[in-house]
Amino acid sequence: MRSIDLRSDTVTRPSPAMREAMATADVGDDVLDGDPTLAALQDRVADLLGVEAALWTPTGCMANTIALMHHLTRGDRFLAPASAHVLEAELGTSAWLAGGLPVALEHDAGAGRPTPAAVTAAAAPAGPYFALRTTLLCLENTHNGAGGSVTPVAEHRALVGAARDAGLAVHLDGARLWHAAAALDVPPSALTEGVDTVSVCLSKGLGAPMGSLVAGSAAFVDEAWRLRKMLGGGVRQGGVVGAAGLVALDQRDGLAADHARAARLADGLTALGWPVIAPDTNIVLVPAGDPAGVVAALAAAGVRAVPFGPGVRFVTHRDVGDDDIDAVLERAASVDVPA
Amino acid sequence: MRSIDLRSDTVTRPSPAMREAMATADVGDDVLDGDPTLAALQDRVADLLGVEAALWTPTGCMANTIALMHHLTRGDRFLAPASAHVLEAELGTSAWLAGGLPVALEHDAGAGRPTPAAVTAAAAPAGPYFALRTTLLCLENTHNGAGGSVTPVAEHRALVGAARDAGLAVHLDGARLWHAAAALDVPPSALTEGVDTVSVCLSKGLGAPMGSLVAGSAAFVDEAWRLRKMLGGGVRQGGVVGAAGLVALDQRDGLAADHARAARLADGLTALGWPVIAPDTNIVLVPAGDPAGVVAALAAAGVRAVPFGPGVRFVTHRDVGDDDIDAVLERAASVDVPA
Amino acid sequence: MRSIDLRSDTVTRPSPAMREAMATADVGDDVLDGDPTLAALQDRVADLLGVEAALWTPTGCMANTIALMHHLTRGDRFLAPASAHVLEAELGTSAWLAGGLPVALEHDAGAGRPTPAAVTAAAAPAGPYFALRTTLLCLENTHNGAGGSVTPVAEHRALVGAARDAGLAVHLDGARLWHAAAALDVPPSALTEGVDTVSVCLSKGLGAPMGSLVAGSAAFVDEAWRLRKMLGGGVRQGGVVGAAGLVALDQRDGLAADHARAARLADGLTALGWPVIAPDTNIVLVPAGDPAGVVAALAAAGVRAVPFGPGVRFVTHRDVGDDDIDAVLERAASVDVPA
Amino acid sequence: MRSIDLRSDTVTRPSPAMREAMATADVGDDVLDGDPTLAALQDRVADLLGVEAALWTPTGCMANTIALMHHLTRGDRFLAPASAHVLEAELGTSAWLAGGLPVALEHDAGAGRPTPAAVTAAAAPAGPYFALRTTLLCLENTHNGAGGSVTPVAEHRALVGAARDAGLAVHLDGARLWHAAAALDVPPSALTEGVDTVSVCLSKGLGAPMGSLVAGSAAFVDEAWRLRKMLGGGVRQGGVVGAAGLVALDQRDGLAADHARAARLADGLTALGWPVIAPDTNIVLVPAGDPAGVVAALAAAGVRAVPFGPGVRFVTHRDVGDDDIDAVLERAASVDVPA
Repeated sequence: MRSIDLRSDTVTRPSPAMREAMATADVGDDVLDGDPTLAALQDRVADLLGVEAALWTPTGCMANTIALMHHLTRGDRFLAPASAHVLEAELGTSAWLAGGLPVALEHDAGAGRPTPAAVTAAAAPAGPYFALRTTLLCLENTHNGAGGSVTPVAEHRALVGAARDAGLAVHLDGARLWHAAAALDVPPSALTEGVDTVSVCLSKGLGAPMGSLVAGSAAFVDEAWRLRKMLGGGVRQGGVVGAAGLVALDQRDGLAADHARAARLADGLTALGWPVIAPDTNIVLVPAGDPAGVVAALAAAGVRAVPFGPGVRFVTHRDVGDDDIDAVLERAASVDVPA
Repeated sequence: MRSIDLRSDTVTRPSPAMREAMATADVGDDVLDGDPTLAALQDRVADLLGVEAALWTPTGCMANTIALMHHLTRGDRFLAPASAHVLEAELGTSAWLAGGLPVALEHDAGAGRPTPAAVTAAAAPAGPYFALRTTLLCLENTHNGAGGSVTPVAEHRALVGAARDAGLAVHLDGARLWHAAAALDVPPSALTEGVDTVSVCLSKGLGAPMGSLVAGSAAFVDEAWRLRKMLGGGVRQGGVVGAAGLVALDQRDGLAADHARAARLADGLTALGWPVIAPDTNIVLVPAGDPAGVVAALAAAGVRAVPFGPGVRFVTHRDVGDDDIDAVLERAASVDVPA
Repeated sequence: MRSIDLRSDTVTRPSPAMREAMATADVGDDVLDGDPTLAALQDRVADLLGVEAALWTPTGCMANTIALMHHLTRGDRFLAPASAHVLEAELGTSAWLAGGLPVALEHDAGAGRPTPAAVTAAAAPAGPYFALRTTLLCLENTHNGAGGSVTPVAEHRALVGAARDAGLAVHLDGARLWHAAAALDVPPSALTEGVDTVSVCLSKGLGAPMGSLVAGSAAFVDEAWRLRKMLGGGVRQGGVVGAAGLVALDQRDGLAADHARAARLADGLTALGWPVIAPDTNIVLVPAGDPAGVVAALAAAGVRAVPFGPGVRFVTHRDVGDDDIDAVLERAASVDVPA
Repeated sequence: MRSIDLRSDTVTRPSPAMREAMATADVGDDVLDGDPTLAALQDRVADLLGVEAALWTPTGCMANTIALMHHLTRGDRFLAPASAHVLEAELGTSAWLAGGLPVALEHDAGAGRPTPAAVTAAAAPAGPYFALRTTLLCLENTHNGAGGSVTPVAEHRALVGAARDAGLAVHLDGARLWHAAAALDVPPSALTEGVDTVSVCLSKGLGAPMGSLVAGSAAFVDEAWRLRKMLGGGVRQGGVVGAAGLVALDQRDGLAADHARAARLADGLTALGWPVIAPDTNIVLVPAGDPAGVVAALAAAGVRAVPFGPGVRFVTHRDVGDDDIDAVLERAASVDVPA
């Protein structure tokens, strides 16, 4: 029995179209005078996001780190939703590398987004003695830690507005911004309104073997180029993977089907009595007292998931079809309902 | 009309005994082979705290920073109560200088201390993907941000126990540990049980013109000596201020009177209709919608206080007597009750 | 007229064999449970270098930075030859990111390697007051800044011995270690004797589109994995470029021809009266009073080189054949001899 | 027999006038609204140095670190004379804390100052690939590592001019600037011409128990105030030691006598056959093959000196009189001449 892998939407294999694109990509030395395929990818992403420019990075972690290094200096506080990727999954780079002191904004776990009022309150200066400055709001859409929840356009605008009124810059971790846009049926640029910088990922859900981008003004991207070199992310003939990234952008149409499969998985698990959080996109969270135990039982039954905070996470993606969802539900029926 | 200064217990002037001690102190070059007065001060504080050794630092910020630099490395999370001094009043050094990613533990504002269960929950590892390690619990007793609230001995033990069970080291910010000990009528060493490192202050409340100490094992203090030099805190004939510190330790008996005056101030303000949080020690917090406005009105009436989070803070200290409290209450009566 | 590009051996295009390998590579999620092609590449490089383990990184800068982050802590001095890549070409990461204070060891520009006596002298502790510790020697073989000069085996051993006697760890920047091994006709492992960590590059000279490795003990590589994630170098299906790296390793046989072409280029330029430093490997340096002017004149004549310290650098590589060298010499004849 | 302590000019005890000043100083809370004695000290030092403003710090290390944190950002190179205090005696803070990559400028050990041509050469940009920026020249007058050597006014101007032409900012480590001014018989402000920031010390030679200042434009001092707080150098009633600093400034007249005693010590040692470097100010260096052995032999004879690079250092100061020099020479006569 082949295991069905729902640990993450990063486990996808490159499609034949991607492999063909990699094998034929036009390339150059991107540290010296540029790689034409990366340049085309960067232009296309900037256009999709409605910003001036974009820069390829090997990973989304580096994309976010570059943005935070740009925005923060020692002695700066920044705000991010509790359980944000920049807080929990990037090894503290926001603090030790970018120099910022994070403040986690509470939110309902199922909602995954703070209120504008929480931004305003957290950004308010304490007495002059404290000398700390709050300078940045970091958003995440969709919000992985809250189960892929979507921040709608109006709410995004209100959060950005609250940040602006408090004098904060705004960075958007858009690793799964494509998913948010698909779920809302809006162009991605509708969800970057008012932000200074935004990162997106070509791997999560879209299926490229590697690569993210960080985007914003042309001046920001100039500085980001230097920061990328500092972090060791300036590659040579990056066009070979950039070509896969261009194909990945063409595959965004498939996200709606991934979302539908996640909804079907959630419904099926709910029918089995599992305490599922209804998904907005392609991530299904199930609170559990013993996440490791549930994951082990699922693995024994042929389903791969991951422990995730106080629960278990399933993620649908390009390499999981309708039949796989049927099989997952069948196999989950043999596993004890999580308590 | 002379203004009565309740902004902080750091505003005290050195007493005649301190000035005499400074003028006659035996000194040496503490960067080369030691200053005898600082050595005596360090020994006495280590003894009071029940630890092996202590090191003088110019400020409490440096004392805490040294401890956090010792405990944390890049990629480490640490836990501290919300509004802790290390989070709000030290310019993010815990993050950009010590390299830690802070996690604020919620607590009732009037209580000022997290529960052991909150420590356990926050220290629990997320999935293996995250790679972050939680390595330190930072306590604060009394807790300034919560109005000088006291953590009693049994509760201190339970918090340390929860940290130990989760594999965390423990640092205690004891800037006002003397106040906690006085309020509980226990020796200071009863409140350092199980901690790895502790900082105390000679200025806040005790009246020395400057100086704090960071204390722990002899091995820790060896490393702290080097860290102090790195931060620019290794002074030469420090005994001149160390002598004042030794006098300050003799003045701990006065803290009970400061606490009594804070209680009287709180009662008096409450009688005037002010929404006072009942003080444990020498800090009186009054929640207020417009802290700056209240502070300005008090200043006009001859009382100095500070805006402090969503309210106003008054602190009693050695240079404020019973008559001053009478005068403060009389003057506060002319000020609008905070809303 | 097509320009002949001798700016660097990083400008090479992937060969058909590499493109085929990328298109058919077996891959996995290297952040989760490993990519089989990267694993094979890592094993093969560790074997070639005679060390326990190796880790793929997107760039050689990241490989070196990981090693320096591993070896250095704040307050450590480290030694490196003057004009080493870690000093001049990595944007100060050894200092601001790894925390080390560099000490440049002088050497004859044409030789490119310090003496063991210089290592001993620079590692000697100053008086106790200084508190600085010297903890690391960073070597570079071949030494790019000195024109690709080779450190022979016996000299390598003597340098490592001097470092060991002074209690230093040793890192070897082996971006072009393949070239040194080819020039000496020894296996690469003969040039890593006694080092703690070593980095190698798959792009410079070998022609892979991207990728380097950092190698050492298994314990080091475990830590390096975490450091790579911190820096944003942990990619997903990296096997697509790893496959090209495996092909690149098979192409090492071509390096001898590149060296021969560099020698012929040097001889030809010398015959034209240019003040050439005789090359050990594939890098030809020409001291020049106005490097930018010489580079511009060459470009106008159809030859691309780069300004490099007080001179001009030419690099031979896989995409430059014998005919190209003939053409370069013909075109250089029309350019003024550098003064 | 009482040992005569020539290890450093930091070993001086506060004079009776200093002790009296400390006992009667007018003080305030310098973290809140300022300490009047520190304010007076800061104004007087700014005036002496011919700059807009100055800020007290506990140590000279912190003063220099603040200036370097102000001038440098990650990826910046800075230039300093070989063996400068910021390179050798500040635990690498210029690198790991201020983020700069140091480049040591060679000089004759007896001269202690680089040439303007060396500044120009070291500041020249490498090829565009390198991306490093050189942004700062750090001078030191007198230069401790070179035996207290003095940079005269014209040479200072030429160095500053070379830095300006290369677009560099200039920081002057003036820990013993008072000595340079005394030796040249010029006002201190003649030696700060054209610098952006300067640090001076009240302890070395002048005899205050602790304290330095960092000075420059008013805007710089505003930022320095915040950086001082970050490093833990913002003390409360600092006027108690500031008062000693004001007395120390009045004692500058005594430096000429210290210099004369150093000259007499050098002459006497030379007469004994010691290989002395003729002193410019109050520091006498004697090259020695076995510095620790010489120091031990001197200590046994009742003279305290320190090992210092490849030699031994003697420093004259306020607590050493003419008779002491006689005694040192008499005792040195019983010690083997250093080889």
